[in-house]
Amino acid sequence: MELEKDKTTIVLFSGDLDKAIAAFIIANGAAAYDHEVTIFFTFWGLNALRRDEPIKTNKGLLEKAFGWMMPRGAKKLGLSKMNFGGLGPQMIKHVMKKHKALSLPELVELAQEQGVKLVACTMTMDLLGLKQEELIDGLEYAGVAAYLGDAANGKVNLFI
Amino acid sequence: MELEKDKTTIVLFSGDLDKAIAAFIIANGAAAYDHEVTIFFTFWGLNALRRDEPIKTNKGLLEKAFGWMMPRGAKKLGLSKMNFGGLGPQMIKHVMKKHKALSLPELVELAQEQGVKLVACTMTMDLLGLKQEELIDGLEYAGVAAYLGDAANGKVNLFI
Amino acid sequence: MELEKDKTTIVLFSGDLDKAIAAFIIANGAAAYDHEVTIFFTFWGLNALRRDEPIKTNKGLLEKAFGWMMPRGAKKLGLSKMNFGGLGPQMIKHVMKKHKALSLPELVELAQEQGVKLVACTMTMDLLGLKQEELIDGLEYAGVAAYLGDAANGKVNLFI
Repeated sequence: MELEKDKTTIVLFSGDLDKAIAAFIIANGAAAYDHEVTIFFTFWGLNALRRDEPIKTNKGLLEKAFGWMMPRGAKKLGLSKMNFGGLGPQMIKHVMKKHKALSLPELVELAQEQGVKLVACTMTMDLLGLKQEELIDGLEYAGVAAYLGDAANGKVNLFI
Repeated sequence: MELEKDKTTIVLFSGDLDKAIAAFIIANGAAAYDHEVTIFFTFWGLNALRRDEPIKTNKGLLEKAFGWMMPRGAKKLGLSKMNFGGLGPQMIKHVMKKHKALSLPELVELAQEQGVKLVACTMTMDLLGLKQEELIDGLEYAGVAAYLGDAANGKVNLFI
Repeated sequence: MELEKDKTTIVLFSGDLDKAIAAFIIANGAAAYDHEVTIFFTFWGLNALRRDEPIKTNKGLLEKAFGWMMPRGAKKLGLSKMNFGGLGPQMIKHVMKKHKALSLPELVELAQEQGVKLVACTMTMDLLGLKQEELIDGLEYAGVAAYLGDAANGKVNLFI
């Protein structure tokens, strides 16, 4: 008989570098404690999952505009505070490297290795015109119903 | 014997359109799954519940100033990101309409139809000088103790 | 036989005055209801725990820069909305005083009197170069693992 694992869910709504880092540190920590962990990426949070390189897609003008204006991937996110036109993120990345803390792209990779379920919110993708080919590999695609199914059984449920 | 329903609570602290939409989508989703749902509106979150039209009230100068500076109702909220002086909210509303997603005022209405309990934080109302007649109908009025009573029995408790 | 108490945990990530106030009001409320309460201060949230006065420490330049740029203590925090270069916080403090609501420093003191566990995130301290002697007395020091241990048993877990 298999024991039921503890479950942790995080909604990552924010597209800020610092909040994404916090989300992944908690998620990776919980996975290390053998929790079943889901991060549900919605609204600006989806930007953390975008590929670095521009992807050719067939989009309308407004969707293209969203695509241009939003940061493309984990390396491009700004800070929620003290962004200073991009200087803040550089400072944070510098001290993280100095302290041998994992960068956000490394945290994402570790999460995937540990089996953290990364779920892209399909409703947001529709609204902002984001296509699956613009996002990194290894994601699941679902809506709020799937999130609620996980969260109803979660011991720790956070909105970040 | 009646079965106890799952409970979901959301503190809506933020006055941002995008966060309010996220809160109501989760709340309406949970209500559709037959959860008992409470949204507790505190600080800037209360702005989502203000009536569109100016209401004549007897207020001090500072409370009037808060009233002028804060957005009046669900149609007037800004975005947490890419607000661009009000252009961002227009873009979001446009794509939501195009995709036939419910607008925030419609999400509020649906929540009330589904029996989601909308609670206005009385302490915030005192502080910011908001009167009951300035808020939409069908609200409950309570403080942090009532919120904690609900949250202690909640399966999903979020702070947005 | 001692009854197990309900547990509440809050991650205070934000360095905004209004969010810190909300966190402490919820924490103090939960403590008054005899919950075991933990606030885990991470990232900008740590600024609420800094001492008012500058503390002489032996730091590198970048850490000094972070120290200068970040608000020093609960009295110096800005608002998440309507900060208006510091006018907003003055307005909020004014109305809180007028309504005899506790100020943030008083809320922190009350939390400590009620036995709320205030935990400073050691990883953030390392990254931002914050030293224990720069923070107020009566704190615990721990990492994400300790937080998760508390949260896994928490009835109410919030990220603010």
